[in-house]
Amino acid sequence: MPGKLKAKYIQSLGQKKHRDEEGLFVAEGPKLVAELLGTSRENIQELYAVKEWIKENSHWIKIPVTEVSESELEKISQLKTPNQVLAVLKKFETGESITTKGKISLVLDTIQDPGNMGTIIRIADWFGVEQIICSEDCADIYNPKVIQATMGSIGRVKVFYTDLNKWLNLQKGIAIYAALLEGKDVRKVGVLKEGLIIIGNESKGISDNVLNFVNEKITIPQKGKAESLNAAVATGIILSHLT
Amino acid sequence: MPGKLKAKYIQSLGQKKHRDEEGLFVAEGPKLVAELLGTSRENIQELYAVKEWIKENSHWIKIPVTEVSESELEKISQLKTPNQVLAVLKKFETGESITTKGKISLVLDTIQDPGNMGTIIRIADWFGVEQIICSEDCADIYNPKVIQATMGSIGRVKVFYTDLNKWLNLQKGIAIYAALLEGKDVRKVGVLKEGLIIIGNESKGISDNVLNFVNEKITIPQKGKAESLNAAVATGIILSHLT
Repeated sequence: MPGKLKAKYIQSLGQKKHRDEEGLFVAEGPKLVAELLGTSRENIQELYAVKEWIKENSHWIKIPVTEVSESELEKISQLKTPNQVLAVLKKFETGESITTKGKISLVLDTIQDPGNMGTIIRIADWFGVEQIICSEDCADIYNPKVIQATMGSIGRVKVFYTDLNKWLNLQKGIAIYAALLEGKDVRKVGVLKEGLIIIGNESKGISDNVLNFVNEKITIPQKGKAESLNAAVATGIILSHLT
Repeated sequence: MPGKLKAKYIQSLGQKKHRDEEGLFVAEGPKLVAELLGTSRENIQELYAVKEWIKENSHWIKIPVTEVSESELEKISQLKTPNQVLAVLKKFETGESITTKGKISLVLDTIQDPGNMGTIIRIADWFGVEQIICSEDCADIYNPKVIQATMGSIGRVKVFYTDLNKWLNLQKGIAIYAALLEGKDVRKVGVLKEGLIIIGNESKGISDNVLNFVNEKITIPQKGKAESLNAAVATGIILSHLT
């Protein structure tokens, strides 16, 4: 069972500053932890679980688990209702260089809502998009709310943070698409083999600097009167038509 | 300014029981209230706003507003961060009978997450779907979290609650589609002029009883490894292909 200082330390990983300092993050709940045991076992540094979870899972997990009581779990959890198991993981290594040839990459400009960010990672994983390039002001993928919303897809999709202007400036000879309120009907673009697809902030859209790099503007035709679509929903629709 | 008892009364509309008793609900924030002033002015019973909002809007709203201070607004608000204006509205009248001929209707089976529910209403509005039929255990559309997530689309889309088994049993001669993990590729179904599209609960899927009524199973092909798509994202993708 984690001591008082250790509990405080694990709790502190709810904040970006501490995650960055330690290079660690937290994932919780049986479903998510089981997924991460599948995709990212080597990243798991510590595992805390209640007796019930250990009893059901000890035969296959093959890594040490610390048993905790419900109330101890509550002290280290980021969730309102702690859920059986908590893992402390090393952040994923993305490597230095981003290769965009021969594949589709998502580019996120200022997606700040953690739920949207996590849902977008899950959508990318559903459609087989392997990497996401984010502006530096996007929500942190290791934010507990993002992690929970990814439902385990975080272990399968590479996410990079970079200065989008500088990075886009270096991308030569690749098609750059952007989801906008006006542009070519997404149903008429066809299936892509390669390209960058930029998704912008729901209320502010895509920033002017980033727009300069766009070769093709695409849109989801509006038939009714809603003012906008949620950024994650728009991403799902676009990937469904273009992949 | 609302007295203590009035404030308590408005606050109580955060709970379904009180909304049902009073036939009222609450909507907050400049954007949402402006939309509802456009679509549903006749439903607005009371309007509370800070001085700043009144100054900017009094010239066009043409209904009485009660000025409140920030701290008074906090006492009647359902939001963590109250946002300038709060409206108390009469619930929408949907009428008795649901007509499904010649149009596309969404049918929701046990969509319980308020954020998903609100986002689905907004998606329906985007794609021109005018009505949604919900099982009785779906989230209440007048739940403050649903209302906020609809971004004003609540005033344009009709939402009915009913016993889905009984209701579906009465639907003769209309195509009934359902979004499932296996079925016909959504990209090959084509555009529909008429039909019911059933969306199920994200973790439990569509209930067996409801499945019995389905004529055509449709699916969003999975190319990667994510286990599922969020129900609202799936709705967006399906409507984008079928409308």
